[in-house]
Amino acid sequence: MNYLDFDKTEGYKKLVALASGRGHFDFAASLNAERVRQRVVPMAAGLTYSWAAKAVERPELDLLQALADEQELIGKYRAILEGETMNTGEHRTVLHHLLRGQVGKPVIHEGKNIGEFYKQELDRFSAFADQVHAGKIRGSTGKVFTTAVQIGIGGSDLGPRALYLALENWAAAAGKGHLRAKFISNVDPDDASQIAASCSLEETIFVLVSKSGTTQETLANELFIKDKLIQAGLDPRKHITAVTSETSPLAHNPAYLDSFYIDDFIGGRYSSTSGVGGVILSLAFGPEAFKELLAGAHEADTLALEPDILKNAALLDALIGVWERNFCGLPYTAVLPYSQALSRFPAHLQQLDMESNGKRVNRKGEPVAYATGPVVFGEPGTNGQHSFYQLLHQGTDIVPLQFVGFTESQRGDDVTVDGSVSQTKLKANLAAQIVAFAKGKTDTNQNKEFLGGRPSSLIYGKRLTPKALGALLSHFENKVMFQGLVWNLNSFDQEGVQLGKVLTKQVLSGNSGDSALDAYSEILGI
Amino acid sequence: MNYLDFDKTEGYKKLVALASGRGHFDFAASLNAERVRQRVVPMAAGLTYSWAAKAVERPELDLLQALADEQELIGKYRAILEGETMNTGEHRTVLHHLLRGQVGKPVIHEGKNIGEFYKQELDRFSAFADQVHAGKIRGSTGKVFTTAVQIGIGGSDLGPRALYLALENWAAAAGKGHLRAKFISNVDPDDASQIAASCSLEETIFVLVSKSGTTQETLANELFIKDKLIQAGLDPRKHITAVTSETSPLAHNPAYLDSFYIDDFIGGRYSSTSGVGGVILSLAFGPEAFKELLAGAHEADTLALEPDILKNAALLDALIGVWERNFCGLPYTAVLPYSQALSRFPAHLQQLDMESNGKRVNRKGEPVAYATGPVVFGEPGTNGQHSFYQLLHQGTDIVPLQFVGFTESQRGDDVTVDGSVSQTKLKANLAAQIVAFAKGKTDTNQNKEFLGGRPSSLIYGKRLTPKALGALLSHFENKVMFQGLVWNLNSFDQEGVQLGKVLTKQVLSGNSGDSALDAYSEILGI
Repeated sequence: MNYLDFDKTEGYKKLVALASGRGHFDFAASLNAERVRQRVVPMAAGLTYSWAAKAVERPELDLLQALADEQELIGKYRAILEGETMNTGEHRTVLHHLLRGQVGKPVIHEGKNIGEFYKQELDRFSAFADQVHAGKIRGSTGKVFTTAVQIGIGGSDLGPRALYLALENWAAAAGKGHLRAKFISNVDPDDASQIAASCSLEETIFVLVSKSGTTQETLANELFIKDKLIQAGLDPRKHITAVTSETSPLAHNPAYLDSFYIDDFIGGRYSSTSGVGGVILSLAFGPEAFKELLAGAHEADTLALEPDILKNAALLDALIGVWERNFCGLPYTAVLPYSQALSRFPAHLQQLDMESNGKRVNRKGEPVAYATGPVVFGEPGTNGQHSFYQLLHQGTDIVPLQFVGFTESQRGDDVTVDGSVSQTKLKANLAAQIVAFAKGKTDTNQNKEFLGGRPSSLIYGKRLTPKALGALLSHFENKVMFQGLVWNLNSFDQEGVQLGKVLTKQVLSGNSGDSALDAYSEILGI
Repeated sequence: MNYLDFDKTEGYKKLVALASGRGHFDFAASLNAERVRQRVVPMAAGLTYSWAAKAVERPELDLLQALADEQELIGKYRAILEGETMNTGEHRTVLHHLLRGQVGKPVIHEGKNIGEFYKQELDRFSAFADQVHAGKIRGSTGKVFTTAVQIGIGGSDLGPRALYLALENWAAAAGKGHLRAKFISNVDPDDASQIAASCSLEETIFVLVSKSGTTQETLANELFIKDKLIQAGLDPRKHITAVTSETSPLAHNPAYLDSFYIDDFIGGRYSSTSGVGGVILSLAFGPEAFKELLAGAHEADTLALEPDILKNAALLDALIGVWERNFCGLPYTAVLPYSQALSRFPAHLQQLDMESNGKRVNRKGEPVAYATGPVVFGEPGTNGQHSFYQLLHQGTDIVPLQFVGFTESQRGDDVTVDGSVSQTKLKANLAAQIVAFAKGKTDTNQNKEFLGGRPSSLIYGKRLTPKALGALLSHFENKVMFQGLVWNLNSFDQEGVQLGKVLTKQVLSGNSGDSALDAYSEILGI
């Protein structure tokens, strides 16, 4: 496989030339019903990717397809699936796809079949959840568990939390709600204190998640909770289960009810489909719901092998994003789900994207001379319409938009007002926004004029189920992966977190070695 | 007063010249203890604005001061306070400062003293909250209210919700927790359905908030809730109170327990210190807590009259932001509170800033030729450190940062791990990040190198109390106002929301008049 910096490819040069000769894209003239019906790519789990409102035409598509071929994106994806060392900084393979099922050949590492290991852990924590639900595993006073609290940060928090919130209403409507879940993440002691105070501790099981078993915030919060359990006369060993790697201090440790394992081939932000997300989601909604989520992700992972960009939603989405980032000069993208259930999904995608591709060196550690990952932000619609959409419509800069929407609500509980139910209003707003952003509106009063030309994509489906959610999650993981491959990055390390950790330790040791750091510590009352 | 487009000012030309001749700013050499101690501006309520880690020196400061003087920022602020028509699009005065107290002369509109009107409404809803707390106002089955649910969207949701979350732990620790608050905002029916299902309706009071009384989402959610109340055998008239304008259909309406009023001079995103935020916060924490919040905001409003930019935190913050936006070319800014209580404060600031200054026309409706409001996003630290900070540290672009931190936690409930409490760890992380972003770190392995040069500000204080929160809120409101004045914008309208509303109505009427809109409606199953 040939790993080339993006600006060394033929495709890059051709795209630069194309962009420089390109005029204003006129959506008002070109966005019609035919375009909307034709520019769709089927995704996994019944979802569809619509790119009608993207400002790309045949010339861009041809060059983007040629770029995908030249950068061997599908071949490199296959290499990831088959266990090549793709996390070049940390010399690791990247195997989160294998959590959902085997797409390529089996991956054997040091004699161990990794896929079988992941399957075994899935079976173990599924059985654990079943036992909790059956009342066979109980708290130290004999009460059944009604609440599960995840203690973790970053990838051990944002993804699992976003997925939990995404399925809470689905589960309520489907009668699949088992334990209620809560999350403690921040080292701010108010976070753990508030959550602990809100729980009936004797009915609460804690899921302690840290791959290394050394995460400062998570260990502080673990001890915080252990103190509370002991103060309440409870035995912490009966109230905490761990998710970690086999080499961590949390592994095989009698301080916990049980421990479930991941390994170094699963990056934090890619770990939602491992025990990191699986234990809490199985406790909350049952192992079958979590397995459906895995099935949706697996189906999407398989579809992502398609080399034709017009048949591979993740690949097309990635390449259009590269076009917007590198050739239209747009440094951000907004994620706008028209689904309250996806309220924290943008925060997860923010980590997924910005931590993977917010890099200035290539996979060999050499600086690159082109823009890489964009800033990602977002809130659910229609809420955002009454907030930051003003800038998106009429600001001085263009922000590419990523919409998500569903035909049906999750709870099916609705009200008719002025002749339509709320779910219809929600969808009408979504359709209206896409067209408003693209086409704009002329007005003699320029304060009421909308220039349009704001590109957007739309992922839509029938209903947000575990399977659809898994497909959605995988879509974005694979999109980010393809972009990282275009940019020749290592999307799987995060060296940018290290310096802060080192300086924090220096402050806490009382010997920072930096006068500014001492002065900041002083004004903050350390 | 002279309203000039920014690029027509002398200051603009001088700043362009300064920026073009300016080299790399070397924080590693210049950020030391002296700089940290000296570059602070006292704010209201004991807060402090630190700008040591901003890349501005004497030449920038001199030009920014001259710009502030040339654009008559303080004079224009005073004109706002005294009721000049500053919302030029809608021909309205802008009086949210008056909600907190009178800074300038009394404002008389059509013979009415507006400040007295605001004070009267504050007194009315304070008394209302007291009566609810005393059990004198009860639900229709005679039970006392234990939960208050706000129904509102945009400014009627994000600000009040952010403030509620910011004070929940303060109230718990101070014994000031009265009613628990929840929020319904989205027209997605799952939002209202989930919240309704989570409440004991006979013990719940709803606060219906819509200035116009015609907000589509809010009216749909009101009827949703009324149905639920009726189905539960309850009388909606005994469970809903309204916050609206006196000309709205919700005013003086026997369908509600009571109605509290604002007027057209209070923009949605500036309404948190009116009954829009005041009713729910007074129900939750008592009227005295809300009045302390107002006192903090009023103190900050008064300090913002100071013409010396080195003594006016909101003004300095605004001008440094303009420097970064227009002369350093940085199109975004991140808000990073090291306080879990401020978890939704960035979402409020996102609306406040992007809806106020995301404009491409000046206050007379003429297009401007310079960049205006930036994209604003953020999450609490330390959570963000394990997420998108990778891009902030090592991405190809620079994102200016706004940190917030406090000496003490709100609940005072903490644990010692490895020789320090969690609150100390939180602060050590904050100090470390500021220095890491500014100074970076050289490394022979460029993947482990940090270029530094990432500018940040820090607002710090002893503890997040209602008064400090009011000061913080006002700081950002006034910062955004000053930036809008520099850019010669009308920061107080939001025409960008209109087109989507019109197209939504067309979809719902079944006659969209646009084939693309019809096709999107079709694929979404409308």
